[in-house]
Formats: sequence, structure tokens, C-alpha cells
Amino acid sequence: MALFTMKLENLEQLFLQELRDLYDAEDQITDALPKMIEAAHHPDLKDALQEHLDVTRTQIQRLDQIFTILGEDASGQTCKGMKGVIKEGDEIISQGGENATVDAGIISAAQRVEHYEMAGYGTVRTYAELLGQQQIASLLQQTLDEEKQADEKLTEIARSVNIEAKAA
Amino acid sequence: MALFTMKLENLEQLFLQELRDLYDAEDQITDALPKMIEAAHHPDLKDALQEHLDVTRTQIQRLDQIFTILGEDASGQTCKGMKGVIKEGDEIISQGGENATVDAGIISAAQRVEHYEMAGYGTVRTYAELLGQQQIASLLQQTLDEEKQADEKLTEIARSVNIEAKAA
Repeated sequence: MALFTMKLENLEQLFLQELRDLYDAEDQITDALPKMIEAAHHPDLKDALQEHLDVTRTQIQRLDQIFTILGEDASGQTCKGMKGVIKEGDEIISQGGENATVDAGIISAAQRVEHYEMAGYGTVRTYAELLGQQQIASLLQQTLDEEKQADEKLTEIARSVNIEAKAA
Repeated sequence: MALFTMKLENLEQLFLQELRDLYDAEDQITDALPKMIEAAHHPDLKDALQEHLDVTRTQIQRLDQIFTILGEDASGQTCKGMKGVIKEGDEIISQGGENATVDAGIISAAQRVEHYEMAGYGTVRTYAELLGQQQIASLLQQTLDEEKQADEKLTEIARSVNIEAKAA
């Protein structure tokens, strides 16, 4: 379904389109994370990415729940933004090289993923509030908080990884 | 130059690669913004995007200055992440539709751009500090602050635009 040829008529339609975009983004992240976990060296980084994979699965369930509340289908949108962001992470992994430097590159790529999601979830959370969908807004807020926490965790791990990479 | 086939050896090399990635991202944004300004309806949104186009040109000059300090070439990297994010904005514009809803979609796309940049600039600013490049770190911090301001400005404009889109 080529939704992008459908005219934007109101906030409700845009809301649904963006939820589908995020659903596809989460799907892509679920595929990408195992490769990042495998390529990572630092145990804390491996753990944080593994934890985020588990969290991502919960976030997908939350979106499923939202689509059920709305009585709408979750599929039909391809998140081109996430496709590009993940491609960058793939490139870092393909480059390979010194362990800590590769880890620093993986963290950088993962933080771009988190920031993309923060922008996306912040937007749909706001739309849900405006549309009077309080339960949905609260589910989206939970995910938004988790994305922020994941980003902060990566910043923390980067502190030691970057110093190792500098010394390489 | 296919830099992504080059192994990552240390933080300095990753730093340079990410700066080139951001340079290409800014170039892409400079091409994309005029189309977004043309497609936007709300005068405040048009103004904010125009202002960000001017700011983006200053940010490119700042990156030029950084590459001069480093004695390195700015080109050689394609920012695939930004390519994907901008493609999403193009799709919103192609869809068209009700004025305020299109504006809400443009704001959403533009905030994804800002968030991508925040992640990118936050990372290279941290690398610059670690590498003892204080002047460069301060230039990158200026850009990072501008991206955050642009994001906040868009959130502010979204307040009235979203309400109009809801009523459409």
C-alpha cells in the first residue's frame, strides 16, 4: 500500500501514518540490533544493546496494543528514515577495525537510531494527547522515556569506550 | 572515495569520518529546506525553516573552518542516514492535502532532521573534547545549541498548527 500517495486530510490520519512509520522502524531495529550486538566488543555495550532489543520487542507489543485500540492495521508504511540510519550502522560494522573504535562507531550509530525514535515518539505522543487518546499517549510516553534512557546509557558507556579508542 | 571500506583504527579517524558525514548531511539539508519552505503554509513555519536554512549555511562555514584547522578535506562521505530522513520529508510534501496537516507533517519531518543532527553533533563535540581540540569542540557546541533551539522553535509552532490540523 503506497500510503504516501494518499493526501493528508487531518491530524488523525497523520497520526496513524506516523504510528505505522514507527512500527516499521521498530521492526527494522529488531533486525539490525542482533548484528550490532555481535559486532560489539565491550561487554557493557553488548549488554546495553541486548537490553534494548528486549525493550524494542515490548515497544512493538505496545504499538500492537495501540493499533488494537484504534481498530487499525499496523502495516502499510516503510520507514525510509530508519532505513538510512540503520544503513550507516551496517557500514560501521562492515568497516571493522580496532575494537574500541568500532564500539565507538556502533554507539554513535545507535544514538542516531535513538534520536530518530525520540523525535518520532515525541510527535505521536503529542498528537495522541491532542486527539484525546490518553491511554495511547501514556503508552507512547513510556516508549519515549525508554528511548531517552537507552540514549543516556549509551552516553555513559561511550565515556570509557571513547578513551580506549583515543589510545588505540 | 569509498571511506566505508576503510578500517576504523582510532578515535581520530572516526572523528574525521563523522565530521564528513555531517558535512554531507548539512549539504543535503541545504538542498531540502527550500522545498519544505515552499510547501509550508503557516507563515511562522515558513519563517522558522528559512531561518534554519540561513543557520545551516553558517554551520557549513563552521565545518569548513574545522576542516581547515585539521588540514583535512571535507568531502568523501555520503550521509545515508540524512538521505533517508529527507526522503520522508519529500514524501510528506508529495502527499499534499489540507494545509495545517501538511504543515504538521513538515514539522514532524524537520524535527527528525534536527534530532539526527543533535545525535551527530553531540558525538563529534565529545570526540573533539577528548582529542584535546577545544576550539573545534566549541564550534561544534555552537551548532549543537542551534539545532536544539531549532527543534524547540518547531515544537512551539506545532502547538497551533496541530490544533488546526485536528479541526480539519
